[in-house]
Amino acid sequence: MRNYAKGYRAEREIVHELSRRGFMVIRAPHSGSIGLASPDVIAAKDGKLIVLECKSREEAFTVPPEQLEELKNWQEVAPAHAYIAWKLNRRGWTFLRLDDVAANAGHVGKKFAEEKGITIEDI
Amino acid sequence: MRNYAKGYRAEREIVHELSRRGFMVIRAPHSGSIGLASPDVIAAKDGKLIVLECKSREEAFTVPPEQLEELKNWQEVAPAHAYIAWKLNRRGWTFLRLDDVAANAGHVGKKFAEEKGITIEDI
Repeated sequence: MRNYAKGYRAEREIVHELSRRGFMVIRAPHSGSIGLASPDVIAAKDGKLIVLECKSREEAFTVPPEQLEELKNWQEVAPAHAYIAWKLNRRGWTFLRLDDVAANAGHVGKKFAEEKGITIEDI
Repeated sequence: MRNYAKGYRAEREIVHELSRRGFMVIRAPHSGSIGLASPDVIAAKDGKLIVLECKSREEAFTVPPEQLEELKNWQEVAPAHAYIAWKLNRRGWTFLRLDDVAANAGHVGKKFAEEKGITIEDI
């Protein structure tokens, strides 16, 4: 499956999962057609606002500085709980707190995810 | 100008205006490609969450029941402040509270907007 299709499917999956858990959810448009970066997904329930960047590749990755910065803005201004949501084929979704990822210079690998990751119940 | 282009331009305008006022803002995708309705614009700042449906036609209009319902869900679940944002060529933007619009069966005309409308400073 191509990366784009895989990423899209993964995002759709997380939108439905959050919706099933009672959140109001929006998948943000990807293209920066209006020149503003944005998280992939925004969800809100009972005064809790969550912003997510979704990743579905199998290998370790680095979140670009501009994505970290945008999530940080949401975290501070909105304020929102910001996570990198990583889907691994055999293990499902892991949520990594923005602050942990930023402290690791954006690097996310399997060991890091095992140590720092939380589940959707805990976001 | 075609309605689509006009609507798009109006939304982009309001996104930039809210952004200029310090809000984190997202323009939601229009196509219901994942089967979930959503507001046109979401903005957040200092714990205040705002959801908007944007209208830019010159004549009176009726907000469809499913849009009222979706805004009401955001208002109650998130919770968010929900408005219909109406742009009139000569008068700029007016914001109509969801509850007022719903109480009027979704109908929005110029007289209603004069009586009930508030400015962007007051949302």
